[in-house]
Amino acid sequence: MMFAVDIMERILVKNTSGLINQEILVQGFVQARRDHGKLIFIDLRDRTGLLQVVFNPRVAQDAHKIASNLRPEYAVSVRGTVKKRPEHMINEKIISGTVELEAVEIDILSKADTLPFDMGGESLDVELPTLLDHRALTLRHERVKKIFEIQAAIIEEFRRASLDLDCTEVVVPTIASGATEGGAEVFPIDYFGHHAFLTQSPQLYKQIMVGVFERVFLIAKAYRAEPSVTTRHLTEATQMDIEIGFIKDFTELLDALEKVGVAMINNVSEKHPEILKEFGVDKPLVPTKIPRLTLREAQEIISKRTNRDLSKEMDLNPEDEREICKWARTEHKSDFVTITHFPTKKRAFYTMPDPADPEYSLSYDLLFRGIEVLSGSERIHDYDQLVEAMKHKGVDPANFGIYLQAFKYGMPPEGGFSFGLERLTMKLLELTNVREASLFPRDMERIDERFSKTEEEKEVLQKNKSSERNN
Amino acid sequence: MMFAVDIMERILVKNTSGLINQEILVQGFVQARRDHGKLIFIDLRDRTGLLQVVFNPRVAQDAHKIASNLRPEYAVSVRGTVKKRPEHMINEKIISGTVELEAVEIDILSKADTLPFDMGGESLDVELPTLLDHRALTLRHERVKKIFEIQAAIIEEFRRASLDLDCTEVVVPTIASGATEGGAEVFPIDYFGHHAFLTQSPQLYKQIMVGVFERVFLIAKAYRAEPSVTTRHLTEATQMDIEIGFIKDFTELLDALEKVGVAMINNVSEKHPEILKEFGVDKPLVPTKIPRLTLREAQEIISKRTNRDLSKEMDLNPEDEREICKWARTEHKSDFVTITHFPTKKRAFYTMPDPADPEYSLSYDLLFRGIEVLSGSERIHDYDQLVEAMKHKGVDPANFGIYLQAFKYGMPPEGGFSFGLERLTMKLLELTNVREASLFPRDMERIDERFSKTEEEKEVLQKNKSSERNN
Repeated sequence: MMFAVDIMERILVKNTSGLINQEILVQGFVQARRDHGKLIFIDLRDRTGLLQVVFNPRVAQDAHKIASNLRPEYAVSVRGTVKKRPEHMINEKIISGTVELEAVEIDILSKADTLPFDMGGESLDVELPTLLDHRALTLRHERVKKIFEIQAAIIEEFRRASLDLDCTEVVVPTIASGATEGGAEVFPIDYFGHHAFLTQSPQLYKQIMVGVFERVFLIAKAYRAEPSVTTRHLTEATQMDIEIGFIKDFTELLDALEKVGVAMINNVSEKHPEILKEFGVDKPLVPTKIPRLTLREAQEIISKRTNRDLSKEMDLNPEDEREICKWARTEHKSDFVTITHFPTKKRAFYTMPDPADPEYSLSYDLLFRGIEVLSGSERIHDYDQLVEAMKHKGVDPANFGIYLQAFKYGMPPEGGFSFGLERLTMKLLELTNVREASLFPRDMERIDERFSKTEEEKEVLQKNKSSERNN
Repeated sequence: MMFAVDIMERILVKNTSGLINQEILVQGFVQARRDHGKLIFIDLRDRTGLLQVVFNPRVAQDAHKIASNLRPEYAVSVRGTVKKRPEHMINEKIISGTVELEAVEIDILSKADTLPFDMGGESLDVELPTLLDHRALTLRHERVKKIFEIQAAIIEEFRRASLDLDCTEVVVPTIASGATEGGAEVFPIDYFGHHAFLTQSPQLYKQIMVGVFERVFLIAKAYRAEPSVTTRHLTEATQMDIEIGFIKDFTELLDALEKVGVAMINNVSEKHPEILKEFGVDKPLVPTKIPRLTLREAQEIISKRTNRDLSKEMDLNPEDEREICKWARTEHKSDFVTITHFPTKKRAFYTMPDPADPEYSLSYDLLFRGIEVLSGSERIHDYDQLVEAMKHKGVDPANFGIYLQAFKYGMPPEGGFSFGLERLTMKLLELTNVREASLFPRDMERIDERFSKTEEEKEVLQKNKSSERNN
């Protein structure tokens, strides 16, 4: 019995190997074409993996003819028969490696221009500007795509861990008027003639929500207009936040953040061991108890190991972070280490000073393999103390009406923490630049396309564009 | 044996009724205080419900004295003994209604100012401006809070339905440069001296991602700078979007949207029947097959039922939407109805015209109880056709570089849809204003606080603030 391509049900590549000698329909993108004498092979890519399709003119002359014009990224429908591969032809690198599809009929769903660079290799060897200039294309590369499979898994596991903590998901605004946390610069918006700007973080709103749900989580945008171009900064980043109220003490917060942080990273690693392997990353080392150090303790350890004097330093610099993580790995078989009690003056106004020594605060960072992936603190929950702390930091309480209102009407002891999604993705896969961990990264130099092209560059680009279209 | 309040484990209110005669610690907000002769009763609210706490001076004199000064929204820790209530005193309205707590000790965690209005009633009888001026407080009211429990459930069920469709979650940017979909006005941003603005929807980016993951979903912000104040519009709204590629035909899209839309609304309703009941809303009527009508068919039905001539109308107005939903409920026992084939000229440039009649498009709305809750279409996936459609709508392709790139390199037939989170929340609970369904609604008139207060208003506000603080 023959079916027309357009009425058969599509079979996903991952399900083909069980359908030997059956006629099926697959759909996907052409990953590569290889002409071997009279046979044409294409690697067909769908969302579940790769399948080798063979076009034999003796089996299907029309299909073979169409196949001879296929180029990478053509979207196609192929009808054909699933054939078992001989033992020595099995390709263990692909999900359908025990079979191939002998094509009977092919429909081109969409043509593609000639690619500006080779996308067929296991890694994509292009410079960062090229990677981003062709983002709609480069995201399709298997290795690039996997970064965002990991990212989706991080989000999912963050949510799972948050729900396990009995948190309620909330949606908070990104447009704000008066209130800034101070520090980083902000993007101004013209809001119907009023001054407004994009929020630097969902911090203030999630704290308000503690008065409502006690425990909340959110996934939100954080905007930073710092005019700096580094490998670690985005102007538009994604934050995953938790805030919990009625905490018994600071330790409960540390327990919560370690539980969430470790669960997320562990579960993602267990879900995608093959991706970690491909990126050359080991499964995280997680001891029963994550080592916890105050900043001062950490500095002493680092000083001893490196003979550097850190007694005057107010924070850990990137080198210090790497060093203390080495220590944690060696001494505690842990890829995680929690650092607490950063100087009060280095933290935001809402951070609770340590009652035992107010120069230091009930704050913490969770370091993972040499970098901070989570940051947070116990918060000041007393209205008067909070207003004092604002004034002390030169922040005007008048700009924080709705925020202070939450404290005016009773706020329990509370605290929380947040992860940077892109930074965590970067670290988990040991990427070298956070831009690789953002689908469409925003920085000083580009919004999708680069801003400051020279006239010459523009001309070349224009030429390339026209010639590509004419292919 | 006696425990100090600060070392006992907190018990949640929902778990108290099984702990009769045990000494426990509860924490929460004072919802109300009632003095009955020598006894003082408080309703204690934690995130799981209400518990009656009784302070008897013969049991604990100190605690009784502290309790006599408690006011609503004080955050407290109470140690006491769980007592079974006599049969006739059982309160079925609260989760702990078979018991009460006889207080032994109380700690005030945080005081609260006198409330500006009564928060003790079953509903909160304040006007919208008051509701929003005191948002950090009014969100704590049980009935207001429930709106956002429903909202959290909607998000969760949307995600579940998306994952069931095999979609991957993606995070897309809100800052854009050139590209607008046309139509609604946008908020400009000063982006390091370059022109940028807030995205009107995640539409263009989710389409790009079809080339990568085939099927994607996202929860994102949509910004509309329309200078209009209605009960249905927010300037910053939340969209839940799905986009799927390699679709067989238009029908596959209709099947997907009905599946997702119905599953979400049904699951939320089944998860929180008590909230729906409290809001006076029935469980949705869902037939085996949602009725599907083209716009023209719907208009004919409405014309027959109302004797109005709609043959010149390009769309359904709110009255029409209500009428066709009445029809669906009567004729198909359905609270849902899908309307397809809106005029091509009324839809965005990326909407696929119906090849059989290009005046109409392969577009659809899902109506639920008289209002559109979902909207979408099959998209143009051919590069040249897309560029033509842009030009036809007066949209400059030069501003859509990264978007068009996705189509230049092969895009399968695809389509998708999106829900407005706040609007769906509003409709599911039959709220009268979408602002009630946004934690911190943004509109022309306010960002948390109202913009244009007269000097007199400001003075009164200031006075109120001072007097509240001095309470």
